[in-house]
Amino acid sequence: MTESPIHVMRAQESWEALRANEFGRLAFHLAGEVHIVPINYATDGEVLLFRTAEGNKLLGIVMSSDVAFEIDGYDSAHAWSVIVRGSARVLETSDEQERAQASRLRSWIPTDKDVFVEITPHEVSGRRFDLAKPWEHMLPTG
Amino acid sequence: MTESPIHVMRAQESWEALRANEFGRLAFHLAGEVHIVPINYATDGEVLLFRTAEGNKLLGIVMSSDVAFEIDGYDSAHAWSVIVRGSARVLETSDEQERAQASRLRSWIPTDKDVFVEITPHEVSGRRFDLAKPWEHMLPTG
Repeated sequence: MTESPIHVMRAQESWEALRANEFGRLAFHLAGEVHIVPINYATDGEVLLFRTAEGNKLLGIVMSSDVAFEIDGYDSAHAWSVIVRGSARVLETSDEQERAQASRLRSWIPTDKDVFVEITPHEVSGRRFDLAKPWEHMLPTG
Repeated sequence: MTESPIHVMRAQESWEALRANEFGRLAFHLAGEVHIVPINYATDGEVLLFRTAEGNKLLGIVMSSDVAFEIDGYDSAHAWSVIVRGSARVLETSDEQERAQASRLRSWIPTDKDVFVEITPHEVSGRRFDLAKPWEHMLPTG
């Protein structure tokens, strides 16, 4: 028996990873299709925030609030991934928008993104993976 | 007028990035929800291949072939992302499975993943981003 190479992260570890990062991928519905885009985000308490402009991402979220979000990372020996499933909602009130302005949310790319969106997680799951040894990478995976 | 920080990648550049990488994120439908998971993949001509085991990912793909896939990367000055929208299909015949076995597909994590899935891209789009200067990161994003 070898130990499983997959380790479930505790909720606290997953949230620490979410707080420590600012780049992830958002998956959303749009006209019956699934779409995915890279986004900058920030945590604010137990929600995620991101900014967007008019476009498919915003349209998709307005039409269907069901979203999934992922962050990950790896080095030569380990990989990890945190997945959030939740509901997205455009922030409408000036109070909400001010709160978002005050968050640590920043954009890597200086374009106009006027709309703040909040994701309320329903489910947060994180996993760490022990990667195969470098020499095993040389073998066929079959 | 400043130059746009967003550059559309040519199809050839996007495919070069897809061929040069082996780790991405798959978004798929499952019971009316959108899900996202990290996967190892390989290109085989103009399709993508990945391996999976019984589970939600496989169930989702069998129920709805519509998927999206993303790879990305960044350094201190630039980021890039390639997005594929396409149809996923489980490889059923032994010929197809042998072809997949012969591909460069490998798994970072040594677990049993018996099923090969092929993604036929309908749309491939890549973008490169010039990132904000480091000192601009210190300013509020508002």
